[in-house]
Amino acid sequence: MPEISLPRHLGGHHHHDHSHEHERGGVEPPEYAPPLVELARGGLTESLHRGAVAVCTADGKRQRGLGHPAMPTFLRSAAKPLQVLPLLTSGAAEAFGLSDAELACMCGSLGGEDFHVAAVTGALAKAGLGPELLNCGVHRPSHGPTAKALEAAGQKPRPVHNNCAGKHAAMLILCKHLGLPTDGYDKPSHPVQRLVMQSVAEWCRYPIEQIGVGVDGCGVPVFRLPLVALAGAYARLADPGRSGLDVARIAAAERLMAACLANPLMIAGNGRLCTRLMQAAPGKLLAKTGAEGSYAVALPELGLGLAIKIEDGNMRAVAPTVCQALHCLGVLSHDALEDDLADLARPKLANHRGEQVAELRPVFNL
Amino acid sequence: MPEISLPRHLGGHHHHDHSHEHERGGVEPPEYAPPLVELARGGLTESLHRGAVAVCTADGKRQRGLGHPAMPTFLRSAAKPLQVLPLLTSGAAEAFGLSDAELACMCGSLGGEDFHVAAVTGALAKAGLGPELLNCGVHRPSHGPTAKALEAAGQKPRPVHNNCAGKHAAMLILCKHLGLPTDGYDKPSHPVQRLVMQSVAEWCRYPIEQIGVGVDGCGVPVFRLPLVALAGAYARLADPGRSGLDVARIAAAERLMAACLANPLMIAGNGRLCTRLMQAAPGKLLAKTGAEGSYAVALPELGLGLAIKIEDGNMRAVAPTVCQALHCLGVLSHDALEDDLADLARPKLANHRGEQVAELRPVFNL
Repeated sequence: MPEISLPRHLGGHHHHDHSHEHERGGVEPPEYAPPLVELARGGLTESLHRGAVAVCTADGKRQRGLGHPAMPTFLRSAAKPLQVLPLLTSGAAEAFGLSDAELACMCGSLGGEDFHVAAVTGALAKAGLGPELLNCGVHRPSHGPTAKALEAAGQKPRPVHNNCAGKHAAMLILCKHLGLPTDGYDKPSHPVQRLVMQSVAEWCRYPIEQIGVGVDGCGVPVFRLPLVALAGAYARLADPGRSGLDVARIAAAERLMAACLANPLMIAGNGRLCTRLMQAAPGKLLAKTGAEGSYAVALPELGLGLAIKIEDGNMRAVAPTVCQALHCLGVLSHDALEDDLADLARPKLANHRGEQVAELRPVFNL
Repeated sequence: MPEISLPRHLGGHHHHDHSHEHERGGVEPPEYAPPLVELARGGLTESLHRGAVAVCTADGKRQRGLGHPAMPTFLRSAAKPLQVLPLLTSGAAEAFGLSDAELACMCGSLGGEDFHVAAVTGALAKAGLGPELLNCGVHRPSHGPTAKALEAAGQKPRPVHNNCAGKHAAMLILCKHLGLPTDGYDKPSHPVQRLVMQSVAEWCRYPIEQIGVGVDGCGVPVFRLPLVALAGAYARLADPGRSGLDVARIAAAERLMAACLANPLMIAGNGRLCTRLMQAAPGKLLAKTGAEGSYAVALPELGLGLAIKIEDGNMRAVAPTVCQALHCLGVLSHDALEDDLADLARPKLANHRGEQVAELRPVFNL
């Protein structure tokens, strides 16, 4: 079943191809990765971000790409839509009458804005649950004005402001629907986490026993697969009918994609990368960030999935990379990159005197 | 005179050696850079920081190294001791009776602590100058408690709290000594900046017309050279008698090194990387950070200079790299890396629930 071979690319400049890799999570980082983005100071390269880009169709065929397709990639938050799908296939979403906005917020890395908090709290309430059950930890809301408003009101950030609050709400609601205890829902051994991991394996079409597992920023299991498997999963979200999966899964993906495409603000928030990309090409893409330089985009009109891993994990390279990749795929125009999205496509860096002294710019084509 | 050839390393896995490179700053980033540090999550590589390490003797010979010796490197703040040397060779330091602590603070990237502010202000006062002349811009002091104390006192950070305040003070004092206007002292065309750039070229033993120039975080010119040239400069600081330079320059380097070695807190500040390394091996090294992953160490007992460039510019990889390099050179013991310096040598990363879920660790030997 694994159509994706796992070549190791080790040992200096020699290639050793192994079509099977039986160790759990045993994919090795490639020895070489091509430059994707440079930081130029005074017009001269100062730093270089390498990585890999993979573009797939729903049958898992790599259509375009750069760098090693098997680049090992912890999906991080780019896995969220895949982690949420069991909520739909189980019938929980329908049983509790969850709205499109509520489903979208579960797939998002949320800025903690008031409407995010309302969507998370509202979804939990439909299942008779409260936000006190969220065990995702606490961080300052990513949305600056919201963080400042909380501070001004003398309030501390709560778990419901965590960027993963929606995903955790989905897991809790799934517990409720299946009659499972919510206690320990975040532990790898909890049945809900097993369902979630099965969903990731199915949509990535990757053997579950070969998925590498770690702990995510929000405490739940996080999954490491070859980059091309993430691109394949997003291609299947974009074009579920060609996913080869059963009708229940196809219907679930269709509903979830429609929910996300209709609610760009629920995928990230005002002014943030994923939301701005979705607003720049309305209805044409679901763009989803992960941490440590992982990123994925589902492109329904093209029937393609795009996945990116910045090898060094630096998020500053993600926006220029995804903008350039979407430009190469014909999704974002040259004008859009030069105009509305210029601060994402080629961010300028200012020094302590406010002078623009450097910029980040893509150095690749697909 | 350029003993350092500038091989380009382009075109996949082939080497093309060119012994001369006539374009200003025309050194190209190498196509390949070896992994130095990995971020491991759940024991599996999540991200990888590549780069180059060069170890030289004062005659410019590379003694050890990893990656491309000509890795183009904006020296950033690792240039500070070289930028300060004209203050000594010109006689200004003697004329104004500058103390060792004052000279050291000019070489440091300061945390803005009270004793840093006092040293900068004191040095300026000896030349009849005031801190209002500092044109380095403003940022929150790097030393957290100092930043909080300022805030609690209702004060805004001032230029004298900038990490580059000492270096700027050195430039202003040099103006005063040479009878030059302080106005525009930070501009590339000002005679003081020409003297500073000449000093960088001399100590790096690199043709001045081939040095790449940009604007630094603090507004003054910043220099791009092959990494091995930075290692050579620090070897000459470590062992000035073998630098091949004249007696005035040798004496200047001896005085400056003694001043720095005696004042680790003036090179960075309490709890910060450079200071902690210098405190861990008292009198044995001058350790100096730059921005964007540049770093240099002068090792007087060994007569060596060590220079590091993290290709992607991420500062999180610097401490594990420099600790490992110093361990390979026999300067830091295995016990020191496992004990006092463990948080620098292998930093643990916690998630939003405070659980340690990942670590940074070196993946190279010299």
